[in-house]
Formats: sequence, C-alpha cells, structure tokens
Amino acid sequence: MAQLIADRRDIDFVLFEQLDTEALLKTDKYSEFNRKTLDLIINEARTFALKELLPVCAEGDRQGVTLEDGVVKVPACYHRPHRLYVEGAWTSLSEPAEKGGQGLPPSVARAVAEYMVGGNYCCVNYANFGHGTGKMIDLFGTEEMKRLFVKKLYTAQWSGGMLLTEAEAGSDVGALTTEAVKNDDGTYSLTGTKIFITNGEHDLSENIISPVLARVRGAAEGTRGISIFIVPKYWVNPDGSLGERNDIVCTGIEEKMGIHGSATCTMTLGGKGKCRGILLGQENQGMKIMFHMMNEARLSVGFQGFCHASVAYLYALNYARERIQGKDMTGGKNAPSVPIIRHPDVRRMLMWMKAHVEGMRSFIYFTESLFAKSALACSDDECDYYKGLIELFTPLVKAYCAQRGFTVTVQAMQVYGGYGYCKEFPVEQQLRDCKIASIYEGTDGIQAMDLLGRKIVADGGKSFGNFIRQVQDVIAQAREQQGLADLAQSLEAAVTRMGEVAGDLGKTVVSPNVKQAFAHAFPFLEVMGDVIMGWMHLWRATVAARTLAKGAKAKDEPYYRGQIKTADFFINTVLPCTVGQMASIARMSNAANEMDEAGFGA
Amino acid sequence: MAQLIADRRDIDFVLFEQLDTEALLKTDKYSEFNRKTLDLIINEARTFALKELLPVCAEGDRQGVTLEDGVVKVPACYHRPHRLYVEGAWTSLSEPAEKGGQGLPPSVARAVAEYMVGGNYCCVNYANFGHGTGKMIDLFGTEEMKRLFVKKLYTAQWSGGMLLTEAEAGSDVGALTTEAVKNDDGTYSLTGTKIFITNGEHDLSENIISPVLARVRGAAEGTRGISIFIVPKYWVNPDGSLGERNDIVCTGIEEKMGIHGSATCTMTLGGKGKCRGILLGQENQGMKIMFHMMNEARLSVGFQGFCHASVAYLYALNYARERIQGKDMTGGKNAPSVPIIRHPDVRRMLMWMKAHVEGMRSFIYFTESLFAKSALACSDDECDYYKGLIELFTPLVKAYCAQRGFTVTVQAMQVYGGYGYCKEFPVEQQLRDCKIASIYEGTDGIQAMDLLGRKIVADGGKSFGNFIRQVQDVIAQAREQQGLADLAQSLEAAVTRMGEVAGDLGKTVVSPNVKQAFAHAFPFLEVMGDVIMGWMHLWRATVAARTLAKGAKAKDEPYYRGQIKTADFFINTVLPCTVGQMASIARMSNAANEMDEAGFGA
Repeated sequence: MAQLIADRRDIDFVLFEQLDTEALLKTDKYSEFNRKTLDLIINEARTFALKELLPVCAEGDRQGVTLEDGVVKVPACYHRPHRLYVEGAWTSLSEPAEKGGQGLPPSVARAVAEYMVGGNYCCVNYANFGHGTGKMIDLFGTEEMKRLFVKKLYTAQWSGGMLLTEAEAGSDVGALTTEAVKNDDGTYSLTGTKIFITNGEHDLSENIISPVLARVRGAAEGTRGISIFIVPKYWVNPDGSLGERNDIVCTGIEEKMGIHGSATCTMTLGGKGKCRGILLGQENQGMKIMFHMMNEARLSVGFQGFCHASVAYLYALNYARERIQGKDMTGGKNAPSVPIIRHPDVRRMLMWMKAHVEGMRSFIYFTESLFAKSALACSDDECDYYKGLIELFTPLVKAYCAQRGFTVTVQAMQVYGGYGYCKEFPVEQQLRDCKIASIYEGTDGIQAMDLLGRKIVADGGKSFGNFIRQVQDVIAQAREQQGLADLAQSLEAAVTRMGEVAGDLGKTVVSPNVKQAFAHAFPFLEVMGDVIMGWMHLWRATVAARTLAKGAKAKDEPYYRGQIKTADFFINTVLPCTVGQMASIARMSNAANEMDEAGFGA
Repeated sequence: MAQLIADRRDIDFVLFEQLDTEALLKTDKYSEFNRKTLDLIINEARTFALKELLPVCAEGDRQGVTLEDGVVKVPACYHRPHRLYVEGAWTSLSEPAEKGGQGLPPSVARAVAEYMVGGNYCCVNYANFGHGTGKMIDLFGTEEMKRLFVKKLYTAQWSGGMLLTEAEAGSDVGALTTEAVKNDDGTYSLTGTKIFITNGEHDLSENIISPVLARVRGAAEGTRGISIFIVPKYWVNPDGSLGERNDIVCTGIEEKMGIHGSATCTMTLGGKGKCRGILLGQENQGMKIMFHMMNEARLSVGFQGFCHASVAYLYALNYARERIQGKDMTGGKNAPSVPIIRHPDVRRMLMWMKAHVEGMRSFIYFTESLFAKSALACSDDECDYYKGLIELFTPLVKAYCAQRGFTVTVQAMQVYGGYGYCKEFPVEQQLRDCKIASIYEGTDGIQAMDLLGRKIVADGGKSFGNFIRQVQDVIAQAREQQGLADLAQSLEAAVTRMGEVAGDLGKTVVSPNVKQAFAHAFPFLEVMGDVIMGWMHLWRATVAARTLAKGAKAKDEPYYRGQIKTADFFINTVLPCTVGQMASIARMSNAANEMDEAGFGA
C-alpha cells in the first residue's frame, strides 16, 4: 500500500542510519528502550494517525470552530480522536514517566509526532499545547504550582495556551497593555484583551491553563516591564479539584484562510473585574520565562510546516504514479499514455519536494538529537556546545521549514493540476493550513532578525563556527566515498562562500549601516537553510554510498540509490541558485532602505 | 487618498512615458482618441471598479456559486455590477466599434482591465468571457455565424465559454472522448462530459455560447482528429431570437480553494441525446482554431495573476504605512514606535513586490503594444516580427505572471502578519484566487514546454534573438544615462549568459537526451521572465533618469527616483539569484530523470 502522511522508510533511515539513535539507547537514561520497542511505538503512532486522525482531517476543516456565549466548540469529529490520543498517552513523550511522559528520546518523539501532526494538525494540537505551559511551570514554578499543574498539562488532562499578542502588540510584544495588580492574597488581578490565541478556549478539556504576559502596574515600559502569570480557566483547589470559574472569556474567534479546526480566540481577561492569575517566577521576568516556551513553540511551528510538506509530497507522489496523462517524451508516436511521473517536469517538482521534505526531516531530527546530547553531556562546555547549536538552529527550523514547507504544498497542488485546487482533493487544505506557520510564533522576518542579530552576531559567531565545522566533517567523510567527491566539492564551495557572506553581514550589523544588513537577513536565513539541506543530503548520500558499497538488500537498493540521486539533484540544481542568492546578499544593495517612502506608490 | 487596485501614476508612466502610446494616436486607426480621452476612459474605469466591483469582491467570495437542477446561481451581489458593466460597454474594448467594441489600443484596454479585473476578477470574467468565443467565430465562422453571434458575444449580451477539459483529458487534450456525429441538416450531435468549465453555466446572461472540442466519429486519435463546435445554450433563430433549449447541462460545480464567485462547471452534452453543435471551420481543425482562443486566454490568465499581485501590493503598502509596530532600528532606545514600512525586512518585501508588479505591468503592456504594431505593420516581415515576439512572450506572460503574481500575494500576507491570514482582511482572498492562474489554461509546466520546445527551438531561435536585440537596445540607451552604467553592465552579463544557457538547452532538446532539457524548462522560463523584468526596469530607469535630467515637477521626483531605486533593487538583488539559476540549468543535472521510480518513496 502506498505510504500516507510520512515515509516510514525514510524516518527509519534518519533515526537509525543517519543519526546514532541506537547509541542513545545504550545510555542509562534510555536503557529501557531498544530498537524493537521504538519500532513498535512508531508503528502504533502510524496506525492511530491513519485510523483516527487522517479520516477527520477534511471534515474538521469543513466544520470549523464555533463560538456562542463564550463557549467555543471544536469540530464534533475531533472529540473521539482527542480522547483516544489523550488516553493513549501520546503527549509529552520525551518527558520522564514520573511527570506523565514516556521518557522517549526527543528525535523518536518527533517520529511519532510526524504521523500525529501530519494526520491532523489542528486536532492533536489541542492536546499537545499543554506541554509548553507545563514545561514553563516545571522550570520556573513553585513546588506547589508544579504539584498542581505539571502532570495534568503534560498528560493533556488539562490544556495549555500562550497569551502574548494584543491588537497593538504583535511582533512588538513590548507594547502590550494588559495590566496586573497585586492582591493581598499574593495573586494578581489582570485586565486586558489578547488576540490570535490558538486554542485559547475550547470544549475538549476540563480546564485550560493560560500563561499570560502582562505588565504589573507601574512597571517599566517595553519588554523589561513584562511579567508572566498563570491564569487557569477554572481556579484549582489545593487538592487538585476544580474551583471557581475565572474571569477569562473568549469574546471572538477568527475566520481564517486555513487551520479551520483550530480555535483562534480573542480572550478578554477581567471583563467583570475578576480575573486572577498567579505570578510565575519573579516580576519583570516574563520575557525570559516565555522564551523557553517560545523556543519550543518555534521548533513546533517549523515542524508543522515540515509535516504539511511531507503529507503533501506523498499525496502528490501517489497521484503522479496513478494519473495517466500524455505520452512518454521518448516513447514515439504510438506509445501508450503513461503516469505523469514519467514526465520530466513532474519529476522536477517531485524531486524538489522530496529533497526538501527529506532534508527538513534530517535537519529537524538532528536538532532534536542535540537535546538528548546536551542532557547527556559530560561537561558544561559540551552542554553549551549543543545548546548553542539548538539556539542557532531554532529560527532556521521555524522559518525555513515553514517557508519551504509551504512551497512544497504549492508544488504538490501543481502536480495535481486542476484537481489540486479543488476541495475534493486533500492538498489545497495542506496549502491553506501550512501558510500560518510562516506567520505565527514570530513571523519568518522576525526569525531572520533573531538569527542574524542574536544567534550569529551577538554570539560572536561561536555556534555558527561550530555549525560550519559539523558541515566540514560530513564533507570530509563524503570525500572518502566513491562518486561523491564532486558533490562534496560543490557543498564546500557553498559553505565557504556562506561564511564570507555571514562575515560581511555581521560587520554591517555592528556598523551605522545596520539597516542595510537587515534588509538581507531573510535571504541569508534562506541561504543558511539551503546549505543545511545540502549538508543533510551529502550526509545521507554518504551513509547510502557506504551501505551500498557494503552490499544492501535488493529491495533497499532503490531507496539508497535514490538518496544519492537526491543529493545530486539538490547540490547541482538547488544549491547553484543558493550561491546566486549569496552573490545577491554580497552586493548588499541598500535600495530598499534608500527609497523615498513616497516612491513606493502614491 | 491611498491608491487601491492599481497605481494610476505607474499606469500612465508605462502607457505614455515608457511606451509610445501617443504615437499610436497619430495613426488613422486610433485618430479618434487623444491623451485626454484616454485619461477620461481610464478614470471612468477606476471609478466604476471602486464603486461597483471592489465593494462586492469579498461578499462574492463568501456567497460562492450554487447549483440546483442544472441552474447555476452566481453570487447575488454580482448581478448589479455585471449589468452596469455590460451597459457601460466595458467588454471587447479593442475591437472595432462596428463589431461592438470601442476601437481602443490594446495596451489602453489593459489599463482599463487592470481596474476591472483587480476590482473583482470573478465578477467581470462572466462578461469578459464572450470575447474569446466571439473572436474565434469572427476569424473562422461563416458569414451567417458572424452575423448571429459576434456582436452579441463582444458586447456580453451573450456569454462565451471554452469546453476542452475532460476527466481523462486535461493537459493531454488529445485524449478527449466527446463525440460528434453529423446530422442531415449539417449540424452535429454531441455526446460527452466536460469538466472544470469556467462560467460554463450561470444566470447572468440570456444565452451562453460554448465552443466545444470533440472528435467526429471515425476521426483520427490524438489532437489531429479534434474538431471544434459552437454549442449555444439556446439555439439561435435566423432573426437572432432565441429558440429551443439545447441539451447542454451543468451537472456539477467544483468547491475550490478560491475564485468562489466563478462557476467551475461539469457540463454534460447530449445527456438526453439532443445536444447539437455547429462545426466551426473544417473537421479536424479544432486545435488550430482553439489555439487562437487559448493564446488570448493565456495572456488573460497571466494578466489575472498580475492583477491579484497589483491589488495585494497596494493593500500591503497601505497597511505598512498605517500599522504602528516596533521602533526604528536606528532611532535609539526612547524613539517612538513607527509604521512598519520603516523596518528593513518590510521594505525588502515591499520592494520585491513593487519590482515584480511594475515589471509585470510593463511586460504585459509591452506585449499588448505589439498587437497594435503588428496590425499597423508596413510589411509582412514586420508583421511577422511582432507576431513572433507575441508568440514567444505568451507562455511567459501566462506562467511567469501567474507564478510571481502568486508569490506577491504571499508576500503581501506576510506584511500583514496574523491579520493577513484572517478573512476580515483582503489579502488572503487575493492569494487563494491567484493560485488558479498557475494551473488553468495549461499549467505553468505546459507553458514552459511550449516556450522551450515550440517558441525557441522549433522557431530556430529567431524571435528569441529578436527579443535579445530589444534588450540590448535598452542596455545601450541606459549606458547614455548618468548612474545607470553599472546596472546596464549587470543586465548585459545576465542576458549574455541566458543566451548561452538557451543554446545549451536547445541543443539538448534536439538530442536523445530531450528529457534532460525539459527537466529544466520551467526554471528556464523563470530565468527568462526575470531577465525580462530586468529589461523592463532598466528601461524604466532610463526614462526616469532622462526625465529627471531634463527636470521633473517636484511632486513627481519621488516617483522617478523610485524607478531608479527599483531597478537598482531588482538588478542587484533579484538578478544575481537569476544568474545562480542559470548556473543551475547549465549544470543540467539529470538526477530527476535518472531516479528509479521506487526511489521516490515506497
């Protein structure tokens, strides 16, 4: 049967051939798992997603979300899979068992999530949202808060949220006006309105725990004066039972292009003057604490973009294999009609999609593997090394995977032709749902500024240098494999050029011409993402060539040869365009900044 | 007031400063017009579009189209603007007055259409669709057919159509199975089912005249055996009155991602065995005749993509000027918050959009101007010269403007951030509506094959060479303007390289490795489109620099300086990426073709 949602063969390759997941299993931390148990878990996830999630994906999109008197109803078809998902304990998989997780390596948790998120992003997101909130409390809460909230959030008995945005404070979080006033009992009374709150209110959980950014009355302007509060929908009694309804109410939901099954809420706090919250950490530490959650959320959003791409690619591939249309170009006049996968332009699109989907999969799993490595690190230096790479890669996972993920869904529609534009077929929903990933959790433009300004320049290029050395290590290994020397050479030239361009940009960032540099920040993010794809593909090709040289099973050979061809395609077809983009950045045109505002149009 | 739909200043620049529209007015053919009358006509179009079309654009998207018992109802809000549009005689503007048109130069007709199509594509399309059908009859019909149909189609008293696609014959038109059998009275009885028929049935016109591709029983397989028939919804009596209802019935409409106001119909012909059509031209000439209409339709579809882009750009620009968010990067800590147009990444996006919108406008108007030139040509050679350029540019207008137009709408959404994803704001509809332009009228991939295979290789590179000489002419003129030498140099290098790459591809097309070439046909189409944008921008900058040197009015200076900055941006920021794409094509990786089919995934 054709693969749906995700390519299991490729997941296994990344986990067990490209990455050293089996080495992890030899550590104490993961000793309860072996390859067989991991296979079983991933199989179960696939079965669940195919049986419960994917079948209601289109229905949830059609039904959408409704709001009546503050009550948000999710698509009716979500209730059963949500319940089974929570009962099956599919959330917080990489948290320890005592906190409600399964103690899985993070990269394996991603493999599970590929099926779940790919099967029905909007549906599983209600359950998955508890983790980020729980994590913040786990890291920054009092013992009492941890006791009351963490496990229930990790297990999705309760749902979580993330209340940052206001109408006049979107990308500019520091402009927020939600106010907190301390009460005699130590709680804070909150007043304000938050918008664009994903899953802010819904009817799937008995309680919703919302972390809220607000300013304590009298605190400093901007981000320095922001604190973070835990605002439960139902107040929680010391014995864990639910108490009084809090004054946090959904007063609007957005009609959107996609993710119709996801409730995008306007949340009014203290409309009746009775919204209470609990301070998390200290006053004015709000941004620092929220960033822990935001980094997790950014990785999740990039992952979302990738999942839509993976689903869309497999749909397009299956369609291209089945759809008979036109003759083979070299088949002669009387040749029979063929499946469209035989046509070079369709192959070009499929290869482009495959290269990006598989490259993103490797990149995302690799980034997840760094979490395990940092946790197992023998020294602070080693831990810092991995954490630095995670920080460097976070805006890239978010923005690059969102952006290229979207482009993959657009290509998938193109493979379907007119059918792709019709709701009867599944790719148009993937396209609509995917687009949000470039926007929320900090737009892709914000990510690009974070990458260049904070993660490269403010870091003094330390982690950027470590990243380049990792790429060079793969280049050196590729050179030892027959047939890969040219690919290694091309990637090396690209990496070297990227380093030079980063140096030029970095110097401009700390000069008075800072705007000139930031006008090229997003193109640079794309360049770096492309180089990472090249790195991942050369790495994949190296593993594949090594395996073929040793002798692979006959049934596996097309897969391994396909890996080498994909690296060939990416490095010889996509990467030259990337090198052109480097040339563009190197010219560092300042025209966009120099333009008169009136010159943009009357 | 902020501009909406289209930038009038820029339209005037293209018509009267870049192109020599006023020279046209000195010819006999256009002598009844002067600059003032043209201004008035364009003003009227803008007023009509702003008053009648744009206000019901979102409503039409929400209402969509319904089908009940073969009756298709368009959005109720379309009826009034449709009636006024037809009464105002806004269709077929460049046809002669005696046939129901206004005799306008085609490029000026495009200026009018920018407002109409940009204001409400789906709505005006019902009226505009008559022209293509009328034109075919005008060119290939008998005198009787012309008398009965042409004027009523040109004036949109009756609506037209285009019935090509069948479920198993999309890109592969030759696979169609709709059958025609000749009757004793000279008509043909038709049987078959067509799908994806835009405006195939609706309630806006008293009659709908559908050109239908079908195969006369016993005719050859493939495209050689296809004939074309005129199938009226209501049979037309010799006195022009409506007679018997024909057996052509809408049996389904598609639910689509966008263009909800446009009826996408399944049309069943001869369901009761009583569908009759009139042969147009001779039997088996169907494809040749239909191509006349298809070329017109392809230009219209590229124009559609461009119009969505123009609208989306102006929305994004106005939003960026109004939306206050964040501080100026070089404003210091206590600076006030600023409109987001001050941020370099937003400027990058706006410049990218502006450069593509204005470049496409020039390209489209230029192509339209070639129609007037070919009609006024003094010799067959001169006429062929212009017609050759039109043929070369047709797949580029279609696919490049559809593709880049869509990317502009995506960028516009990005400028809006979260608001852009919400239906309350206008850009998400532009994005959804625009996507179809890359798919219908021959997918962009089909256009790329047409460009490389027919328009360059089969033409022996003749028109391609004429195009390059036109670019070189602009480069030479730019060199005479102060400050443009570097831009001219960069464009010349790109054009030269493009010529080399085209040569390599052309040689490969006529070799046994034909598939290798066609795997790069679409990237080559993009390259050629980008070079055309560079050409148009250098041309624009040359005109602007010349005008500034002579001394422009103070209020016009930002516009002209903006033209030079836009050329700077395009040639220094976009074109280096294009040169990278040329390097990619030049490597001509065959990986996509060499891939095992199994290697794409299990």
